[in-house]
Amino acid sequence: MRIDVYFTPLGPKEGDLAGRGVVVIDILRATTTIIAALANGAKAVIPAATSEEAVRLTANLEKDGFLLAGERKCLKIEGFALGNSPREMTPEVVAGKTVFLATTNGTPALVAAQGGDPVLVGAAVNFGALAERAGAVFRERGDLAVICAGREKQFALEDAYAAGRLVKVVKKGIRKIALNDAAEVALALTERYAGWDDALKRCAAARQLQELELGDDVAFSATPDRFSTVPTYAERRIT
Amino acid sequence: MRIDVYFTPLGPKEGDLAGRGVVVIDILRATTTIIAALANGAKAVIPAATSEEAVRLTANLEKDGFLLAGERKCLKIEGFALGNSPREMTPEVVAGKTVFLATTNGTPALVAAQGGDPVLVGAAVNFGALAERAGAVFRERGDLAVICAGREKQFALEDAYAAGRLVKVVKKGIRKIALNDAAEVALALTERYAGWDDALKRCAAARQLQELELGDDVAFSATPDRFSTVPTYAERRIT
Repeated sequence: MRIDVYFTPLGPKEGDLAGRGVVVIDILRATTTIIAALANGAKAVIPAATSEEAVRLTANLEKDGFLLAGERKCLKIEGFALGNSPREMTPEVVAGKTVFLATTNGTPALVAAQGGDPVLVGAAVNFGALAERAGAVFRERGDLAVICAGREKQFALEDAYAAGRLVKVVKKGIRKIALNDAAEVALALTERYAGWDDALKRCAAARQLQELELGDDVAFSATPDRFSTVPTYAERRIT
Repeated sequence: MRIDVYFTPLGPKEGDLAGRGVVVIDILRATTTIIAALANGAKAVIPAATSEEAVRLTANLEKDGFLLAGERKCLKIEGFALGNSPREMTPEVVAGKTVFLATTNGTPALVAAQGGDPVLVGAAVNFGALAERAGAVFRERGDLAVICAGREKQFALEDAYAAGRLVKVVKKGIRKIALNDAAEVALALTERYAGWDDALKRCAAARQLQELELGDDVAFSATPDRFSTVPTYAERRIT
């Protein structure tokens, strides 16, 4: 039985994740936003590496079938309908639409997860359902990989904390388990912080969002189990 | 006052470290080996990205002035005089010589530190002297960056633990200090592990070395303050 955590999308090498069960986490904010969109009725979310790619992917689509969403330096991309805020993904806005989402850190994490089967999309807002689903995959396969989006190729506390929470739940009751160094340390973080709120208020990403008056997104993202949807990513679509 | 820790050499972006005081750590084993070599009388250590580069760099040098050293998958490179073991760097072997060292993780970390001023080479074996020197840089500049070599682009516990120990000593007595997420978590690790031995015996790199019957290198690397040398890296030479 083995669990590997990767603190950034740069960790896994080509082929490291082929056929493995993978969880992708970008709490502030991409995976939180994706979960909110799908829980609120979006047909699919298509991650794009850049705003240009998002525009290109939608060039030949019917205008009323999709929404462009995304951020650059945390702020809504000019000309896009939505930013990367989970609070914008209301049923009124997203129901029935395909959301094309361009984000700085979330998209590289999903791209790194390609080849995984299944690739589950996780955050605090769906943590209970995620843990159940990931736990089932782990018990069946004896193996799980968790990719943290991190922040501009660097370690991000909030994602590592979430990974630790997940490792803790998933490994419960299993005596012999191999953890890589990052999984071992992620697990240690669950004892260091009192809960989602505590971990999320100490991270640099939250400070940056607060400075941009997006502190409500942090509060939204720190609330566990708002949703029971666990999206999966396959063939460049999240559903 | 600010301290940034990078868990892998991929973290710092171009220009992030320009003119900053930087500490590079690769406890198992590159920086331990470099410190041992210089403490035992080597003239300089030249890091090379690959064995081929090490050979190329020495092509026109007098044979008795240098030594080729390095590892691939932890083992000595064929045809090289030395591996990447600190125990090989005895005064009898290295005194007066320039050591060309090819390592998997240590070299990328040093390359990432380029532009730093000074770039200090640290490990457990010189920890006391390192902390004093890095502390002086930090008090003068109000700023310090610590690059962990990690392991094949991934997080390595032993380097993160050392970074945490360093942050702890350096920030002592300073009330207001900005830490990035990785520095915050590295600091937490100093409470998680009882000491160098404890941290080093739990990491994947140590397990791998033990499997290759290089466990004595782990014990050597876990012994603090064997040396009082703090090498510096500038213009592709460590002296």
